[in-house]
Amino acid sequence: MGASVAHTIHAGHRHFGWSRDHAPVATVAPGEAVEFDVIDGGGGQITRASDAATIGALDFATLLPLNGPIAVDGARPSDTLKITVLDVTPSGWGWSGVIPGFGLLAEEFTEPALRHWTYDPSGREPAMFGTIARVPVRPFPGTLGLALAEPGVHSALPPRRVGGNLDTRDITVGTELYLPVEVAGALFSVGDTHAAQGDGELAGSAIESPMRIAFRFDVVRGLALDGPWFTTPGPVTRHLDGKGYYVTSGVGPDILPAARDAVRRMIDVLARGHGVGALDAYMLCSVCADLRLSEVVNTPVSVVSLYFPRVVFD
Amino acid sequence: MGASVAHTIHAGHRHFGWSRDHAPVATVAPGEAVEFDVIDGGGGQITRASDAATIGALDFATLLPLNGPIAVDGARPSDTLKITVLDVTPSGWGWSGVIPGFGLLAEEFTEPALRHWTYDPSGREPAMFGTIARVPVRPFPGTLGLALAEPGVHSALPPRRVGGNLDTRDITVGTELYLPVEVAGALFSVGDTHAAQGDGELAGSAIESPMRIAFRFDVVRGLALDGPWFTTPGPVTRHLDGKGYYVTSGVGPDILPAARDAVRRMIDVLARGHGVGALDAYMLCSVCADLRLSEVVNTPVSVVSLYFPRVVFD
Repeated sequence: MGASVAHTIHAGHRHFGWSRDHAPVATVAPGEAVEFDVIDGGGGQITRASDAATIGALDFATLLPLNGPIAVDGARPSDTLKITVLDVTPSGWGWSGVIPGFGLLAEEFTEPALRHWTYDPSGREPAMFGTIARVPVRPFPGTLGLALAEPGVHSALPPRRVGGNLDTRDITVGTELYLPVEVAGALFSVGDTHAAQGDGELAGSAIESPMRIAFRFDVVRGLALDGPWFTTPGPVTRHLDGKGYYVTSGVGPDILPAARDAVRRMIDVLARGHGVGALDAYMLCSVCADLRLSEVVNTPVSVVSLYFPRVVFD
Repeated sequence: MGASVAHTIHAGHRHFGWSRDHAPVATVAPGEAVEFDVIDGGGGQITRASDAATIGALDFATLLPLNGPIAVDGARPSDTLKITVLDVTPSGWGWSGVIPGFGLLAEEFTEPALRHWTYDPSGREPAMFGTIARVPVRPFPGTLGLALAEPGVHSALPPRRVGGNLDTRDITVGTELYLPVEVAGALFSVGDTHAAQGDGELAGSAIESPMRIAFRFDVVRGLALDGPWFTTPGPVTRHLDGKGYYVTSGVGPDILPAARDAVRRMIDVLARGHGVGALDAYMLCSVCADLRLSEVVNTPVSVVSLYFPRVVFD
């Protein structure tokens, strides 16, 4: 970004949980570019030297730190904050883990696991998963949101109507995100940056990776929202789809059990077709495979499909 | 297809519901191309002359007719049937409806409604939604599957482990679909053809449209499946994604209520941005917008996102 950035929020400006009582570390004017030096969701507990034992010993109280908050001058309750992602500069290092108790198949993958990723920060080359797979990167912030009107400190884990831990992979460069303002100044924070993630983040982690992100903030009046919406300026999956997909489907009355069936079938497909072990397949799906609702209206049975991009093995 | 087709299953060869006791209308050899002249899910009740009153007076007993069944020579229980979609030839006419009691927002859209579509059967031009929207077409069969081992006649509405009403929009030309065989000959049927549909088919109908489809069948031994999987030979959304997306997100502990919130927000976005009425927006979303599970692991809150392709208005 360089000269056009009006504010830089350094990694040390962090807080835990969302609160209307967190003092802003800066107040920015609408239209200004603000750069955040974002630490990853591990909060510094996981480094290049870590292994599975590190995951097993995580201190949950200091996971998911948030950088900020910043106040946007003039933003008032019932306004909407328009957040434009201007630029993302990833670090080139990241990790993926299985954290016991988290993930769609938490009852089957109960042991801590950790994989390290070293990737080209330019994004031009895919990230290598050992020697077995090449995952295209598309970095984005997993968590970005505003303070809630309700008093108290609210966990950073669940997403909310004001954003937060949305883990939505297409909120990246060029995206314009709209969130409802509930407190004076809006109090925006960001964290949990990912170099790549599939829709669903099904094993509970992406390629977790520190990075710098620049945003622009604008206040929109007369647009009362009750939840997030955003626009993307162009395609969102062309980095992944060139060779087509393997697709497994779960069929059943409840969505999450059907999603679990789809994941189990994909683990089987990757084992048969590419000799990938179950744990590696589960972690790979989390960083590059997409959970889609194929149909939800053929009462009382839905179809949930998991799309795994074949380019990862080609 | 022409000369290379070994069998043609005409539209009159139809049955209702799935049953192991339906006599096959043809027995085909593995590797042969078989063409089906598929009637749409309305079963002939909806024609170019129909209006909303036709939808209100539908005879549910003759909806969702299935063309077939055909027996595949040599297919036995515990084999897998590989079904390759060779060719799809759409008719150029179709309809979309709101059928009271069906659809994700059935409690809000309670009145019958019908829209007609006339589209270029070559697929090179988008289908026109009145004068307000242009929907790229990508025709496919909503229903394709095999007979169940369980005796009796089973409704064609819900999809099952052997396929059926999967309404999965990427099972189209070039796709290889794998389904578990439960009865001798497999007993394959097809129906409910769609010229375009978004992931979810959220209002309960797509662009419902008769068409001819050719398949090839192969028997795979030693691969015991418990549900569907398929491969696509290439990208699946490039006909839609060129101009990016509007995306609305539902955030909550239960997937379907969150999906409903996402749909309501999209109806609002299309009204604000393009002056589209609520009923039209709901029907448009069903034929071209995709429901995706952005995250399902930030316990206990999931994010369901609805992706609406902006090219429809450009």
